[in-house]
Amino acid sequence: MTELVQLSHSLAVATQGKGFIEITGALASWLEESGAANGLLTVLVRHTSASLTIQENADPNVRRDLSDALEALAPESAAYAHQEEGPDDMPSHIKAMLTSVSLGIPVVDGKMTLGTWQGVYLIEHRASPHLRTMALSFIGEVVRR
Amino acid sequence: MTELVQLSHSLAVATQGKGFIEITGALASWLEESGAANGLLTVLVRHTSASLTIQENADPNVRRDLSDALEALAPESAAYAHQEEGPDDMPSHIKAMLTSVSLGIPVVDGKMTLGTWQGVYLIEHRASPHLRTMALSFIGEVVRR
Amino acid sequence: MTELVQLSHSLAVATQGKGFIEITGALASWLEESGAANGLLTVLVRHTSASLTIQENADPNVRRDLSDALEALAPESAAYAHQEEGPDDMPSHIKAMLTSVSLGIPVVDGKMTLGTWQGVYLIEHRASPHLRTMALSFIGEVVRR
Repeated sequence: MTELVQLSHSLAVATQGKGFIEITGALASWLEESGAANGLLTVLVRHTSASLTIQENADPNVRRDLSDALEALAPESAAYAHQEEGPDDMPSHIKAMLTSVSLGIPVVDGKMTLGTWQGVYLIEHRASPHLRTMALSFIGEVVRR
Repeated sequence: MTELVQLSHSLAVATQGKGFIEITGALASWLEESGAANGLLTVLVRHTSASLTIQENADPNVRRDLSDALEALAPESAAYAHQEEGPDDMPSHIKAMLTSVSLGIPVVDGKMTLGTWQGVYLIEHRASPHLRTMALSFIGEVVRR
Repeated sequence: MTELVQLSHSLAVATQGKGFIEITGALASWLEESGAANGLLTVLVRHTSASLTIQENADPNVRRDLSDALEALAPESAAYAHQEEGPDDMPSHIKAMLTSVSLGIPVVDGKMTLGTWQGVYLIEHRASPHLRTMALSFIGEVVRR
């Protein structure tokens, strides 16, 4: 039986306004650098106007339609009480609440157990560029080096 | 103090088109077979047009209303850019984004800490039958046998 | 290398009808009492008409707008098949499905890795007061005392 370890990391991503930014590669790189073998990866986005999802990484139109769907569910035109930070701020909080703030991803043989068409995405909900940070945790077996 | 272990498993479920399929029993069976005692169970669905939720397992009308609510939030009639895989595909991605792709469930004395009325469900969003796989992870104490 | 442990706890919160109740402090207290140092905290709400989110803890208007958004997405006025438990029950299940039932939060040096403006909230979706319980799990390194 292999002893388990826990590893922590912080991942920063610069966004360019509203959109889906794939972070699958960055997560895979951290797992590889860490020698992670079998266990659980957890990702937490440390913001309330950006969020996470795992979605199709093939046709870019899927992300476009997902963005449109979020716009329709949380329109800027609604009468929000919270207006101080601009018309795109309160819709951003709603979109974050409706998607994911944390994701748990089992890891086997050093690889995330994602399906063929799955990519992990940071979703920027604000109109302007932001620097977003995510807290990463891995708990499991590591390769001895 | 008991040493912790990590266990991995793959769970496959055949769906019959749109609907909620309860997987609580399958998860409980894996925990029991594995000798899982105290720790954390994580479930990840490896698809982008099926998803997960924990919801009431008593009145079947609840799942019917939940399905209707998802249909209203992501109607097939909307003008999607992504059309190649049929009218039910893009709504499926939206529904998956709005529900859950992964769930973390604490386990105590070998049992998931679900409430009385909670069941764990795979939600099939596509109209046709699919074989869906989920990655399971348990990290914690196991019973020695 | 420090040996990992797993800890379990149950957190009960009395709600006063619909609203967001911050539980960040209660989670931090449990971590501190437990000597949790580095690892992963998981919170599962054990109900299907209450749920979890991590959202802005500054302007109270944000929670008001979030509540309004959930009301709009799951109106009491819709024609639900499930009516036996009152007009606020089926909307509660929908709101729970659209938000989070479990959250994974990496812990570093005994602190949750939340961003500056993030608070963890239990969302009560029912109109009347309820006693809600959450299952907590910590897996990681603890301080020896």
